[in-house]
Amino acid sequence: MASVLLPIAEGFEELEAVALIDVMRRGGIEVRVVYLEDETHGALVTGANGITVQADMSIKNIISEDFDMMVLPGGWDGTYALAENERVIELVQEFKEKKIIGAMCAAPFVLKKAGVLGNDYTCYPGAKEEIDHPGYRADAKVVTDGNVITSQGPGTAVCFGLVIVERLVGVESMQAVKDGMLLDYC
Amino acid sequence: MASVLLPIAEGFEELEAVALIDVMRRGGIEVRVVYLEDETHGALVTGANGITVQADMSIKNIISEDFDMMVLPGGWDGTYALAENERVIELVQEFKEKKIIGAMCAAPFVLKKAGVLGNDYTCYPGAKEEIDHPGYRADAKVVTDGNVITSQGPGTAVCFGLVIVERLVGVESMQAVKDGMLLDYC
Repeated sequence: MASVLLPIAEGFEELEAVALIDVMRRGGIEVRVVYLEDETHGALVTGANGITVQADMSIKNIISEDFDMMVLPGGWDGTYALAENERVIELVQEFKEKKIIGAMCAAPFVLKKAGVLGNDYTCYPGAKEEIDHPGYRADAKVVTDGNVITSQGPGTAVCFGLVIVERLVGVESMQAVKDGMLLDYC
Repeated sequence: MASVLLPIAEGFEELEAVALIDVMRRGGIEVRVVYLEDETHGALVTGANGITVQADMSIKNIISEDFDMMVLPGGWDGTYALAENERVIELVQEFKEKKIIGAMCAAPFVLKKAGVLGNDYTCYPGAKEEIDHPGYRADAKVVTDGNVITSQGPGTAVCFGLVIVERLVGVESMQAVKDGMLLDYC
């Protein structure tokens, strides 16, 4: 069974995180949602719009060997918290080297900081100045550049999830999730 | 400030609930997420895909006078729990009479049970036999029939949220949220 690591930090964009988790789990992927050790309220993490989601476990004992991919939802405050966390940066680098790494909205900022952003990527249009990296593409909801996959924002999160399901599980599972969730626009 | 009541029960569809809350709060609506009194884990409510969201308060002391609208996310288990809850049925009837009532995916089943489903509605395509009510429309992501608004499923939740923002706040706020969340497909 394919498995994906998804860290959330205070101020994460809730729709992006939940859309990714929902689509991936429907596609048969085991998704582990983790919180950072320095979160004020432990596993209960509050997003940018005041929605509190319970993470499955702490990032403390996570090792990249147990997963096929790591994916980062956006939201600026959550993104800054991820970027400032040394363990997150280490994991991002390990996933780039040996697995698949994904980020959306503001979170490609974390990939930039970790030095793993490729030649082609996308992000939230309003975030590209701060990410400040050549290769930004405005023309695609999801951009795959080798083992780095990026996406634009809240409205593209479900489509990003489908690309991950297709890559880790297969096109038939992806199509079943797409039909079942009424995602004809992806 | 416009205010919306959104109840969640074990087995709710997480993306639908979170998309509605996220879009409505970005649009300037105060959204109160409530749990049912008989939930096993109180305010922590787990959805159909294993995502646990923390509700803001219990439905116990809620009165319809404090809100402009009530909206129900789908997911079959959550829908059945809402349909079996007497207070939810009472509130649905009060909102139909004096305010606005909304439901999506499987949840128009609750409106049917409460006797408030109108002449034109939509729902999850796979739920229409069980809802068993004339007037089902397959051709629209969101159907407005007076003060009853319905929508189809996970992929249409963001568009449903925009329709609510336009109705309760105005077209300019709706357009700002639509642009900011990259929801050009709605």
